[in-house]
Amino acid sequence: MLDPRRSRDTIAAIATPPGDGGVGIVRISGDRSRAIAARIFRPARASFTEFIPYTLHYGRIVDGRDAVLDDVLVACMPGPGSYTGEDVVEINCHGGRAVLAAVLEEVLRCGARLAERGEFTYRAFMHGRLDLTQAEAVAEMIHAPTRSAAHLAQAKLSGLLGQRIAALRTRLEALRAALAVAVDFPDDEVECLPPEALAGGVAGVRVDIMDLLRAVDRTRTWREGALVVLAGRVNAGKSSLMNGLLGRTRAIVTDQPGTTRDYLEETVTLDGLSVRLVDTAGMRADTAAAPRIDAVEAAGMAMGRELMDRADLVLLLADGTAPLDSGTLSLATVLSPERTLAVLTRRDLPGFDPAHGAPLAGLGFELVEISSVTGHGLDTLCARVRERVLAGAGQPDPDELAPNARQAAILAEAAEELRQLEADALAAVPYDLLGVRLETACVTLSSITGEITSQEVLASIFDTFCIGK
Amino acid sequence: MLDPRRSRDTIAAIATPPGDGGVGIVRISGDRSRAIAARIFRPARASFTEFIPYTLHYGRIVDGRDAVLDDVLVACMPGPGSYTGEDVVEINCHGGRAVLAAVLEEVLRCGARLAERGEFTYRAFMHGRLDLTQAEAVAEMIHAPTRSAAHLAQAKLSGLLGQRIAALRTRLEALRAALAVAVDFPDDEVECLPPEALAGGVAGVRVDIMDLLRAVDRTRTWREGALVVLAGRVNAGKSSLMNGLLGRTRAIVTDQPGTTRDYLEETVTLDGLSVRLVDTAGMRADTAAAPRIDAVEAAGMAMGRELMDRADLVLLLADGTAPLDSGTLSLATVLSPERTLAVLTRRDLPGFDPAHGAPLAGLGFELVEISSVTGHGLDTLCARVRERVLAGAGQPDPDELAPNARQAAILAEAAEELRQLEADALAAVPYDLLGVRLETACVTLSSITGEITSQEVLASIFDTFCIGK
Repeated sequence: MLDPRRSRDTIAAIATPPGDGGVGIVRISGDRSRAIAARIFRPARASFTEFIPYTLHYGRIVDGRDAVLDDVLVACMPGPGSYTGEDVVEINCHGGRAVLAAVLEEVLRCGARLAERGEFTYRAFMHGRLDLTQAEAVAEMIHAPTRSAAHLAQAKLSGLLGQRIAALRTRLEALRAALAVAVDFPDDEVECLPPEALAGGVAGVRVDIMDLLRAVDRTRTWREGALVVLAGRVNAGKSSLMNGLLGRTRAIVTDQPGTTRDYLEETVTLDGLSVRLVDTAGMRADTAAAPRIDAVEAAGMAMGRELMDRADLVLLLADGTAPLDSGTLSLATVLSPERTLAVLTRRDLPGFDPAHGAPLAGLGFELVEISSVTGHGLDTLCARVRERVLAGAGQPDPDELAPNARQAAILAEAAEELRQLEADALAAVPYDLLGVRLETACVTLSSITGEITSQEVLASIFDTFCIGK
Repeated sequence: MLDPRRSRDTIAAIATPPGDGGVGIVRISGDRSRAIAARIFRPARASFTEFIPYTLHYGRIVDGRDAVLDDVLVACMPGPGSYTGEDVVEINCHGGRAVLAAVLEEVLRCGARLAERGEFTYRAFMHGRLDLTQAEAVAEMIHAPTRSAAHLAQAKLSGLLGQRIAALRTRLEALRAALAVAVDFPDDEVECLPPEALAGGVAGVRVDIMDLLRAVDRTRTWREGALVVLAGRVNAGKSSLMNGLLGRTRAIVTDQPGTTRDYLEETVTLDGLSVRLVDTAGMRADTAAAPRIDAVEAAGMAMGRELMDRADLVLLLADGTAPLDSGTLSLATVLSPERTLAVLTRRDLPGFDPAHGAPLAGLGFELVEISSVTGHGLDTLCARVRERVLAGAGQPDPDELAPNARQAAILAEAAEELRQLEADALAAVPYDLLGVRLETACVTLSSITGEITSQEVLASIFDTFCIGK
């Protein structure tokens, strides 16, 4: 929990992701950062006298007994021209956990304290280096599942969303000023600002807010990725399809998966779209045929059902070499064809018969025939999944401004306030009461960029960050 | 596989660990690195004209259509004063996977190729920036499980092991020179270099090699960590102990585990010593009492047995609230008391009776009583595990030179050659034949530092690196 009373501390953390890599960075921010770095750094060059701003210095980090911890590059970035707006030092170490932990420990021993989650970015916000939309965009950048999602975050990181919100507020403030004049000169109020003009101005802002809100839905799948659930009988070919899709889309740019892998879940990228594939392994639709179901199985089935409810798309797999079984059919009846794609598997086997899919087609399901062995139909399947999940949203405009959930909730609140204000204005509600609504809308909007935001809200935002950012 | 024919390519990779973090680095090395960086970098400062060496430049990375990918800091390190000895550019980005992948893609699009595993360090070696012991120490630094292990790697990274090997070679070369004189002037050979003097000089080098080899064993547990296997019946309290130990030792410096977690295995740090705890869950020693064992269970049990064979220490857990069962007793009979610590669990329960452990004590097992609930005995257990695993090795000297497995194998080979040479010298074998053995020993030693090392050996070393190092 971020505590403003501790905002004068010099803080430190490992800024790179945990794990083994070539390079890792320990970041320090605060008044004492330079002094701490000077105490533990032994320059390689005899001519070194002090850290030159924005310059990489080669040398070693030593502990209190002068034992060498690592060969490093150190850079100092004096405030206010740094990420946090304070004096920042970055120590570029070898990227091992133990090495980084040892260097960080030395930094802490010399008087820094371990940074809280998001505390570097919180300080950047407190020092006016970023507004709140930009600070949130930092976390969105880091967690962006795909390049498209990163693009959308970058547009916000550059401050465009904050500027758009500020422009809307400026328009409302202008109306407030006009309203204030009208209130001060009640006899002329209708001339100063006719109710229709006020309602019109307010409606203009509201239309622009609604436009921003529509971008939330339009870009949601791009920003968050899609959840696609594989359903069907145990032997319908779910694992084979999972492996088939994985093999085609495995990212080439890193050599380690990096995240916890569960054989039930994998994330693939379909032409820039991140898709979380979940295999509801063990789920059996034919409960009637399985009289003995234990508690674990029942829990697994309940989880599968819940996943199917939350899914952007369900892939209902059926074995194409056998007539459709009653279990798959009964599962089909509880699924909506709008959110389901039926997949007939084992296209490569001699017993495959497209007619086996007829009952599903009859229920209105779109059908795709595949073979996970030969790869037949997988291109079509990927294309259809992408198309269905995006629901016609297409590639996002890289400069599209897509508010996040917090921002969208505030925008919706402001829009509702403005809608009522329009109605009140046209219903001849007194101008001073209209002024209260207008002020509320302005304050609401300003909490998006953080000019007026409570400590609790700030804490809840920065608590979602990782340590080191 | 590293290919010397591709050594003129400009290479690039993500140098930081995969995952989400505040900062990530894309590293480029080769002649074109600066030109590539210039093409995709848009400086924030209007006054920017070109990259100043070792200076951080703030700006943005753009793609081919000038869309912004990220806000970055870029540093150029011209060769030969760089990590690889070539022109190196590091792009300090936001630490998200998608962002880093997008920036790397742009770098590759502009003409770099993706670096092979270890290729940056391979180039550092090829350009004489590091000898082979230092290059290997880079990987050892990165993968060091603890600060002690990192310390041992750092001593090698600084070149001390390479220097020690070089000094040994120099002594052998001096003997070779003397031997050559003796061969050239056969009549005086005994005066030039009496066989006893040759054998004595060789023995001196061999003693020093043996000393280095002893350090391998002395430091192995520190460098590699220890494997401790939890054995016992399903309900003996293994999971509780695992959780109890984990709770006490969880590292505070990172907020994400980062590695794949399997509930069967956890790594804890006991006062600086890394210990891999493996719970042989599901293993049942009382096979007689379990007539129906399926193939999966049998495979699990075989794995448990193999783990117990490989373990540095086995913790044999027994429920202290019940008389020792026959299954645990029969398991005890196949375990060696030298590599086993018996643990009597559930010390907190009223039914606990230390006498239940008597049969184990009778078999010669050291016994520790614990309660994973109250924590009773866990300190003692940790201390005993540490003591038993280290077998009296104690804390390593941070400056101890501990050869790795490859280096140790070569040292052993050289020592054997020298041992035979001593015997030959004292058996009056002709000097020219002695010279051949001496030369072999010199060549063998030089393969440690890499002066004479085949491409296959180099490839096998650098293939163990991660991409980006």
